[in-house]
Amino acid sequence: MSTTPNPGHMLLGMQFGNGFGAQPHAWRAPGVSPDALTDVDAQVRHAQTAERGLFDFLFLPDFLHLQQDLDHEPPTITLEPLLTLAAVARATERIGLVTTASTSYNDAYTLARQFKTLDVMSRGRAGWNAVPSSGEATAANYGRPALGRTEKYERLHEMVQVMQGLWGSWEEDAFIGDQAAGCYADAAKVQPIGMQGRHVGSHGPLPIPPSAQGQPVIFQAGGGGNGLQVAGRYANGVIGAVFSIEDARAQRAALRQAAADAGRDPDEIKFFAGVMPALGDTVRDAVDRRLALGKDVLPQRVGYLGMMLGLSLGPEHLDRPLSPDQLAVTRPHPGDPRSERALAVARDGWTVREVLAHGVIDYHPTPVGPAEVTADHMQEWFEAGAADGFWVSIDVYENGIDEFVDQVVPELQRRGLYKTEYAGSTLRENLGVPHQYGLDPRLG
Amino acid sequence: MSTTPNPGHMLLGMQFGNGFGAQPHAWRAPGVSPDALTDVDAQVRHAQTAERGLFDFLFLPDFLHLQQDLDHEPPTITLEPLLTLAAVARATERIGLVTTASTSYNDAYTLARQFKTLDVMSRGRAGWNAVPSSGEATAANYGRPALGRTEKYERLHEMVQVMQGLWGSWEEDAFIGDQAAGCYADAAKVQPIGMQGRHVGSHGPLPIPPSAQGQPVIFQAGGGGNGLQVAGRYANGVIGAVFSIEDARAQRAALRQAAADAGRDPDEIKFFAGVMPALGDTVRDAVDRRLALGKDVLPQRVGYLGMMLGLSLGPEHLDRPLSPDQLAVTRPHPGDPRSERALAVARDGWTVREVLAHGVIDYHPTPVGPAEVTADHMQEWFEAGAADGFWVSIDVYENGIDEFVDQVVPELQRRGLYKTEYAGSTLRENLGVPHQYGLDPRLG
Repeated sequence: MSTTPNPGHMLLGMQFGNGFGAQPHAWRAPGVSPDALTDVDAQVRHAQTAERGLFDFLFLPDFLHLQQDLDHEPPTITLEPLLTLAAVARATERIGLVTTASTSYNDAYTLARQFKTLDVMSRGRAGWNAVPSSGEATAANYGRPALGRTEKYERLHEMVQVMQGLWGSWEEDAFIGDQAAGCYADAAKVQPIGMQGRHVGSHGPLPIPPSAQGQPVIFQAGGGGNGLQVAGRYANGVIGAVFSIEDARAQRAALRQAAADAGRDPDEIKFFAGVMPALGDTVRDAVDRRLALGKDVLPQRVGYLGMMLGLSLGPEHLDRPLSPDQLAVTRPHPGDPRSERALAVARDGWTVREVLAHGVIDYHPTPVGPAEVTADHMQEWFEAGAADGFWVSIDVYENGIDEFVDQVVPELQRRGLYKTEYAGSTLRENLGVPHQYGLDPRLG
Repeated sequence: MSTTPNPGHMLLGMQFGNGFGAQPHAWRAPGVSPDALTDVDAQVRHAQTAERGLFDFLFLPDFLHLQQDLDHEPPTITLEPLLTLAAVARATERIGLVTTASTSYNDAYTLARQFKTLDVMSRGRAGWNAVPSSGEATAANYGRPALGRTEKYERLHEMVQVMQGLWGSWEEDAFIGDQAAGCYADAAKVQPIGMQGRHVGSHGPLPIPPSAQGQPVIFQAGGGGNGLQVAGRYANGVIGAVFSIEDARAQRAALRQAAADAGRDPDEIKFFAGVMPALGDTVRDAVDRRLALGKDVLPQRVGYLGMMLGLSLGPEHLDRPLSPDQLAVTRPHPGDPRSERALAVARDGWTVREVLAHGVIDYHPTPVGPAEVTADHMQEWFEAGAADGFWVSIDVYENGIDEFVDQVVPELQRRGLYKTEYAGSTLRENLGVPHQYGLDPRLG
């Protein structure tokens, strides 16, 4: 077995949220238990299905305040991501376990210890999406004022560096374990790091030896100039929010340039484009699936769709296609990159409600129809150099992950675009990113 | 099945540390893998054995800096306790999952979220040992000065209160889960707590509904006047370090009084006395077991034993009993409560090394010999009102937990002192402590 992925194969991560799925009304879908938020066994089952599909990693978004309208929707996040992944780790073998954790509201020692524990427990499958936190709601949950912009980004850099320093505080060959001689470790190789920045410091060492991949992989959201710089310096994985091949290629190129600017090989950063497939035996079936799933949500979006199309749309327009008069004056709003596709779908003659059911206002592009449609989308983007892989948001986890694994994955494999077994056993191996232990010596 | 324990039955918790056992050289014992620190599967197996023995809970000590001499010993703590317990939770059904977490170096929102997640994942089996942290080494790992004594205890109170407030931020019937009506929860019953103390504050709510036991059980170390007050106000379990029945009775009585002073029923606090059994088919076998286990450690303790006995002892005395001349002048040192027992063992004619092998300088009393000796110890203390139960430190987890479960547990059951099945399914039920949700309204 090789331990590096075939460069002709796309990588895949899966959004792993609240136990229900990526669509707000997933919790009401047929066959879904309303208790899935609190049912870790269901989450383990979903993770195992993703692993059956050879997904390279699960990716858990996280937020530090409750932002849903609980009358109508569950929280979008898992109860707590690190403990959830600790439970998932023992029930899986190969799939990577990546979660967001805030660089603004954690202590480096605690967070470094928790991520490294996950990495050791999972035998080298942990990843950390290092993101700063903004906003008054989160700050209020921590009983202190929100960080200013400068401090927020300084703290992000310092957290990554101090945590990587702590992760490297046992030299890789420090553990000995010679029972006869009574020699547990070479204590001279377990040393304080004594790092102290403006906002974050830790003396160390951690009480934890290296994992099977040395230390967790860093992910980053990568938005904006600061985010790009952070990703360029530290990240091996970046999740993008992109709606066109051109935009994705530009973001990927900027990231690769940022890596080069930091003295790294651009191939060390893998860029993942989001995709939210709407699967069905036919396009009609797929649209019907989303109509059912979005029954109460889609109508609320009609006004926004109108804005995207340069029309005034209201509930009275929902169940008919745009008229020739409307189509004659419509123009895609330049402020929303999803507008072009919304217009294209509308021109195909779908009703306004059906246009919305195509996911034209969703967080990621939504291919609609049989597995081939999603595979076509992914192939086109991948072959255009728009992404190294995809971050797949499944609308309803229950059955939905199985459908993706049983329909889209084999189609990608038939096309020679996807692996038929894991390349390795650690997340680094499966992503094809280089070994790193402690701080990156190239960053000075 | 009853859901409250029989008051004639003692409760049992088990020390659950680094994967090896409570004796420093457990990692070198026959049959032990030197990799146990990083092997969560081994820890799960040990937890399952403890559950087979109907232990009410596992209890994980924790420290926020590495304090071992790694050349000769592993860290005494697990990699990270909350993630370890998350992994153990899925592989067990009834045993409680209690860990220490610092009130000095955690944020209330994060820690409340993590403990409540463990509580939900385990279906109501989590407990939090709320302890303040002292010392420069820990402070240095967090890159800030150590807390002063006053702030440390103020922060302890505030952390417990804010965390309990957050735990109660969903009313117990807030979750609805009506899929047909599209009603996930009654958002009016999920409210901010807006608590702000001098050191700790959080707005809330948490994104987590109640667990099967409502919220985690509070444990406390309970030492000193401040600790006693904290335990009296909040704790349902206290782990004591006591070496005589008299001392244990006094500590237990003081705790019960502290609960009464806080307006609570004293029976709401369960006091656990530590015990570190040395098991063997005979007393000789048990001593030999500890001689082998302590081969390199026991000789280092000879000077301290001399101090306890009022003698000057050195390595040259190790392999002979105290002489009649020595015995004539020895007197137990009043500053160490273990001195009386050390002298009694020495008077039985054991060599100095064998006296040490009786665990006379260990952290908890060590009954030495067949299971009946340990059962006698526990029975005597329990029936004297010295403890509601015991915190059992197994010297070597591998095989050692099985020995306790297969030998001591049945002996206690034969004597009518121990349950033959779990009283309930939550930690609260198994401890026989009352329901609590959110802050205790009696504390005002």
